[in-house]
Amino acid sequence: MRQVSDKPLTDDEVQALDAYWRAANYLSVGQIYLLRNALLTEPLQAEHVKPRLLGHWGTTPGLNMLYVHLNRAIKQRDLNMMYVIGPGHGGPAIAANTWLEGSYSDTYPDVPRDEHGMNHLFRQFSFPGGIPSHVAPELPGSIHEGGELGYSLSHAYGAVLDNPDLVVACVVGDGEAETGPLAASWHSNKFIDPRTDGAVLPILHLNGYKIANPTILARIGDDELTSLLEGYGYRPYLVDGDDPQLVHQSLAATIDHVLDEIADIQSEAKADPSAPRRSWPMIVLRTPKGWTGPREVDGVLIEGTWRAHQVPLSGVRTSPEHLALLEEWLRSYRPEELFDETGRPVRQLLDQVPDGHRRMGSNPHANGGILSRGLELPDLSEYAVDVPHPGSVKHEPTRVLGTFLRDVMQANEHERNFRVFGPDETASNRLDALYDVTNKAWNAEVLPTDEHLAVDGRVMEILSEHTCQGWLEGYLLTGRHGWFSCYEAFVHLVDSMVNQHAKWLKVTRQLPWRRPISSLNYLLTSHVWRQDHNGFSHQDPGFIDHVVNKKAEVIRVYLPPDTNTLLSTAAHCLASHDYINVIVAGKSPQEDWLDLEAAELHCARGLGVWDWASNDGGDPDVVMACAGDVPTLETLAAVSLLREHVPGLKIRVVNVVDLMRLQPASEHPHGLPDAEFDAIFTTDKPIIFAYHGYPWLIHRLTYRRHNHDNLHVRGYKEEGTTTTPFDMVVRNDLDRFHLAIDVIDRVPGLGQRAVQARQWLVDQRTRHHAYILEHGDDLPEVRDWHWPLQETSS
Amino acid sequence: MRQVSDKPLTDDEVQALDAYWRAANYLSVGQIYLLRNALLTEPLQAEHVKPRLLGHWGTTPGLNMLYVHLNRAIKQRDLNMMYVIGPGHGGPAIAANTWLEGSYSDTYPDVPRDEHGMNHLFRQFSFPGGIPSHVAPELPGSIHEGGELGYSLSHAYGAVLDNPDLVVACVVGDGEAETGPLAASWHSNKFIDPRTDGAVLPILHLNGYKIANPTILARIGDDELTSLLEGYGYRPYLVDGDDPQLVHQSLAATIDHVLDEIADIQSEAKADPSAPRRSWPMIVLRTPKGWTGPREVDGVLIEGTWRAHQVPLSGVRTSPEHLALLEEWLRSYRPEELFDETGRPVRQLLDQVPDGHRRMGSNPHANGGILSRGLELPDLSEYAVDVPHPGSVKHEPTRVLGTFLRDVMQANEHERNFRVFGPDETASNRLDALYDVTNKAWNAEVLPTDEHLAVDGRVMEILSEHTCQGWLEGYLLTGRHGWFSCYEAFVHLVDSMVNQHAKWLKVTRQLPWRRPISSLNYLLTSHVWRQDHNGFSHQDPGFIDHVVNKKAEVIRVYLPPDTNTLLSTAAHCLASHDYINVIVAGKSPQEDWLDLEAAELHCARGLGVWDWASNDGGDPDVVMACAGDVPTLETLAAVSLLREHVPGLKIRVVNVVDLMRLQPASEHPHGLPDAEFDAIFTTDKPIIFAYHGYPWLIHRLTYRRHNHDNLHVRGYKEEGTTTTPFDMVVRNDLDRFHLAIDVIDRVPGLGQRAVQARQWLVDQRTRHHAYILEHGDDLPEVRDWHWPLQETSS
Repeated sequence: MRQVSDKPLTDDEVQALDAYWRAANYLSVGQIYLLRNALLTEPLQAEHVKPRLLGHWGTTPGLNMLYVHLNRAIKQRDLNMMYVIGPGHGGPAIAANTWLEGSYSDTYPDVPRDEHGMNHLFRQFSFPGGIPSHVAPELPGSIHEGGELGYSLSHAYGAVLDNPDLVVACVVGDGEAETGPLAASWHSNKFIDPRTDGAVLPILHLNGYKIANPTILARIGDDELTSLLEGYGYRPYLVDGDDPQLVHQSLAATIDHVLDEIADIQSEAKADPSAPRRSWPMIVLRTPKGWTGPREVDGVLIEGTWRAHQVPLSGVRTSPEHLALLEEWLRSYRPEELFDETGRPVRQLLDQVPDGHRRMGSNPHANGGILSRGLELPDLSEYAVDVPHPGSVKHEPTRVLGTFLRDVMQANEHERNFRVFGPDETASNRLDALYDVTNKAWNAEVLPTDEHLAVDGRVMEILSEHTCQGWLEGYLLTGRHGWFSCYEAFVHLVDSMVNQHAKWLKVTRQLPWRRPISSLNYLLTSHVWRQDHNGFSHQDPGFIDHVVNKKAEVIRVYLPPDTNTLLSTAAHCLASHDYINVIVAGKSPQEDWLDLEAAELHCARGLGVWDWASNDGGDPDVVMACAGDVPTLETLAAVSLLREHVPGLKIRVVNVVDLMRLQPASEHPHGLPDAEFDAIFTTDKPIIFAYHGYPWLIHRLTYRRHNHDNLHVRGYKEEGTTTTPFDMVVRNDLDRFHLAIDVIDRVPGLGQRAVQARQWLVDQRTRHHAYILEHGDDLPEVRDWHWPLQETSS
Repeated sequence: MRQVSDKPLTDDEVQALDAYWRAANYLSVGQIYLLRNALLTEPLQAEHVKPRLLGHWGTTPGLNMLYVHLNRAIKQRDLNMMYVIGPGHGGPAIAANTWLEGSYSDTYPDVPRDEHGMNHLFRQFSFPGGIPSHVAPELPGSIHEGGELGYSLSHAYGAVLDNPDLVVACVVGDGEAETGPLAASWHSNKFIDPRTDGAVLPILHLNGYKIANPTILARIGDDELTSLLEGYGYRPYLVDGDDPQLVHQSLAATIDHVLDEIADIQSEAKADPSAPRRSWPMIVLRTPKGWTGPREVDGVLIEGTWRAHQVPLSGVRTSPEHLALLEEWLRSYRPEELFDETGRPVRQLLDQVPDGHRRMGSNPHANGGILSRGLELPDLSEYAVDVPHPGSVKHEPTRVLGTFLRDVMQANEHERNFRVFGPDETASNRLDALYDVTNKAWNAEVLPTDEHLAVDGRVMEILSEHTCQGWLEGYLLTGRHGWFSCYEAFVHLVDSMVNQHAKWLKVTRQLPWRRPISSLNYLLTSHVWRQDHNGFSHQDPGFIDHVVNKKAEVIRVYLPPDTNTLLSTAAHCLASHDYINVIVAGKSPQEDWLDLEAAELHCARGLGVWDWASNDGGDPDVVMACAGDVPTLETLAAVSLLREHVPGLKIRVVNVVDLMRLQPASEHPHGLPDAEFDAIFTTDKPIIFAYHGYPWLIHRLTYRRHNHDNLHVRGYKEEGTTTTPFDMVVRNDLDRFHLAIDVIDRVPGLGQRAVQARQWLVDQRTRHHAYILEHGDDLPEVRDWHWPLQETSS
């Protein structure tokens, strides 16, 4: 591995940097251990120590070392720099540094840069009512939690997109590097335009150990490690050592060198737009885990081993020896040289702090809402499809949406603040109108046969849902807007990432200084009912169930039944903030039910009676509810069958776009008040509910509603294979015949005519199934079915 | 990249291999397109073609090419070889090859190796009532679906563990290679013992394109690609070309070479157990996507581009030109040379087929249930803790479980068919007794300070839940047993993998020839209520919600409340088959409630009244139900508060271990009959249910029960941070005070004494919360609380 042998620092500079580092280390240890006596003005007593010691020391000194050296570079070069740390449990480091530089006190005036503030800083860390032990939304300068490992690098790359002046120093822990999402995200460098995007400086922190094991990358030898990183498209520079004085020189020289190299790559690309992709520099920092902490405790080696991962000294309140060791450790940083008697950092430290927004704890990109500008959204009427009568025309909803997204892209081109993300599926999901105005980002080799690839493309495609999600989160958190389209079944790949983002949003909503960011918008398409061709592995509508466990104020779920409702929903979501919006909509040709005006009204209400499909005259025999495009189609087909075969039956059709309307108002901000719910769903009539996903979810949302005992839900019950579209609904008892039978079985007193109708429906179902097995296709009467009642109902 | 330049084949051998390849390609195209006229005995007509064309051609010819060459090596060396293909949508290739070799007809006698069988083979593919388009459980020889990409390599490594004679040829698609799980799993080679494990031969199929884009690995140049693969610890050999004759020579020579190298690595390791890890050979196969298919259609280039991904020729039934192109394409393989007039493969092909179980479609490892031997399980009484009275002792449940797992490991050491998997957490989860009898598998560098690392260790730790899961699935699918312990919150990382495994199990249960395999057993610990120290990012009990959407016959969820119930549950799960068992249990010191006899009875029943904690005399005023260790503790503490402060109140305590007992018997095989449910939960008394996870799940499971309207559930409602254990339950209204208040609020007619008690409970709650905020710890009366009623109740 390359090493830079320059020694750019004078002795005074080494001493100054080291003092800053010692101060950060002191403040880190203080946070983990101390309740009071922050300046050690009196001898350390057991009661000065926290009763519960919670924090991670192992990674912290390395993070501190990097922070002070990055500050040096920021000052020297007036850099616009953010710090993303994969080892997010190294929270004490970031709290320490942001306090030292003043960002913390600017954000939290009750934690000033003095002795009082230092005591507050220490006490609140990992303390009830205080701040978490990890880097979290509460910490200024951060966009990255790091509690769940693997996303640092994709977040960093998302942040630098369209921020050509920004450099994100991204620390990758060598533990984190073993995760799949991190392993995939190294390749993000093939999606960066050195002219119009900023730069990520990855810093692999090779401190050697995880909680209980050595790390793989620390134990494969330098040759394999170098090959691996070069194979990922980087030029790794090694900084290696355990003598702080030598590491200061080496790290300063290396940071100078890699920043020069980054500047060179960027200026070369600007000079010659056709210049081929170059490998970006990165740093491998090999320093001991728990560096400068206790070397040995109770005869066991701590520093430089996995035992330094969390709290190296325990039982401090009860063991006088450990208490003495702690005091010795704290005093080893010579706090009296670092802070004046008021607790304020001494001038030598303050002189090293970058100015204002250049401080990494105050970089506005890390509080993206500050920088965010709303998207310009074109008038929906330009994209809406004409619907003379319900069901009289068909469109591919996502294809029409693609034309809208295309023009959103174009309308905001001057701001360069909108991107579309997807795992190789943007065209498959029929959003390819986007390629009329932009391309797919691609900075690797291009062949003449390739289409729509360009280094400055604004559609981000990589076959990694994790990387797409990480990029998008980084992009949103730094104040921009995005759209993620994904096969419905495979969005489960990012379940856990969504959890973390939902948690982040939940906390930031409680922090007034964190400004709202644009919502995370999912379009889940190629959904369970239209993956008949790919089969069982591609059929899973459970992402909705997953997200609704998160905080109600953060989660929105929409099931637009046709093209115009999809347009209306999409425009609404793109203008929203601080939500996770999940939209499920098909890409296949699909009946249009509502014109734009009706669609916008319906979406605004979230659910409602479709009068044109109902004949209940205000007093239904049955409510047929539906949510999702295919269930809506089957419901309406069932209605038409019932109208014909059970005349006189009074059916009310209710369509649900905004799933959260089903919950009580006490449970979700969108929840329909009980009186309204009762007015629509009745309190005593059977409800046959055709639902897109797993049927139990509807029960879970409505169990407190008065008419719940009459609710009967059909949905996906995990039956599927490679087959026809209609066979899919038949297999799951969601087909029109079965829904009609459900109605007959539940409405009392329908008489002999209904008995005959029921038998006819059973026979039809059998006939269709037999045809499918014989011919491998659906009967034309299903494929070409259309709502027959427009004349009478309009 | 290395290339092998030998030409080991005679012209006759090339011709024979090519004939076999053409036969496989012909059969593949036939499956995608033809309904009948399989042998093309008459000119192709539109009605011979399927109405819906569903399949993936692009990857198929490469997969076929590999299959025939692997057959050659199997015959030459009498290899025990399996074929795992990441591009699982290349299903036609595996169906074609297993039919050619006879494995398919052995498994499905109704699809014989003749014209009738060939017609059946073609028709059933991607056809309703037939087989899926992807490699799926229905295909003999497979353990890997591949519909969701990323798991081929971890499955392959799982399969070779403890199978020293086995070689798994694992095709990694270059699309799949972009996924996180795949990117992480290359490092699996650091966990393989060349003496006691088999070998994986990775074959990176660099065919250049995904659905709509080039692949990254195809566009970074050979130097970076070579570096990357060498960095992953492999020696890559390139086979590159589009002329089949040349590729046959090159591929044969390369396979010979890499198999020699594998044999050399294994024999060297056997000769010198201390030999350092060597890089394993692998193959990079660069051939055109859609090779031998239509080169151009309608003036657009197909072969060698992303357009060959799925069906290169569409509209075949309506376009005479396309129909002619299809016929030309099919006839280009010269089927008349490959099959005799009865449709049977000609002698030249049959001669190339390996014998019996050496055929990859008949390898017994791919139907692991055949080879599976039940685990020897030690008698639980040796591990059970002594419980003189309920709540009179405390243990760390997982630590005790560790001693049991240790002895399971030892008792089955002679079979080498049990391993424990975990992402760096086995010791953190307190299962470290395992290290008394085995080590952690590790074949990278070892330092003197390391502990419990050994090349033949049977605990598998890597900081990648995806890789752990993939290894374990591969291990189970090949007939062995395993145990996966994981932090509860982060098991969501594998949500999507669990989906796929559950789907696999659901299908295999319907295939009589697929023999049952050992269950996938999760121990979720470090759970939501005991991640108070790590904070919000580590708190998520939603995995249960996720799995219960899968087929009821596959899913089991257990919440043992103490040590002996955990032991009983674990033993039960380890002896079970074809399930996904989710066990949630804490690692912190925890009251023991049941002795072993009571625990085993309670677990067998799944739920039941705890008489010793109840005073209802058969007629309760309220049912206090609980599921999970912390909810059980808080419930019992609430009971003791109520006994003291609301004397006369008749409380029935019900504990639930087997969550699926709550569902109706019609919904789940474990569902309690309604009459029993009513007898336990009453039909008219309030139920206060303290639940481990998101409270809605209990409603979703019980909404059909008679007493559902009286059910009131407390659980995790997404409130948490770094705090104390008791503050966690307070924040979520699951604490003893709140539960007791819930009871008072819901039981009518309790009188003035209860009003006073309620106020006292509210005051206590406030007092505790204030103490926590002040002191950063729970009051001793919480930490040291114990069930006070053993004397009177026993």
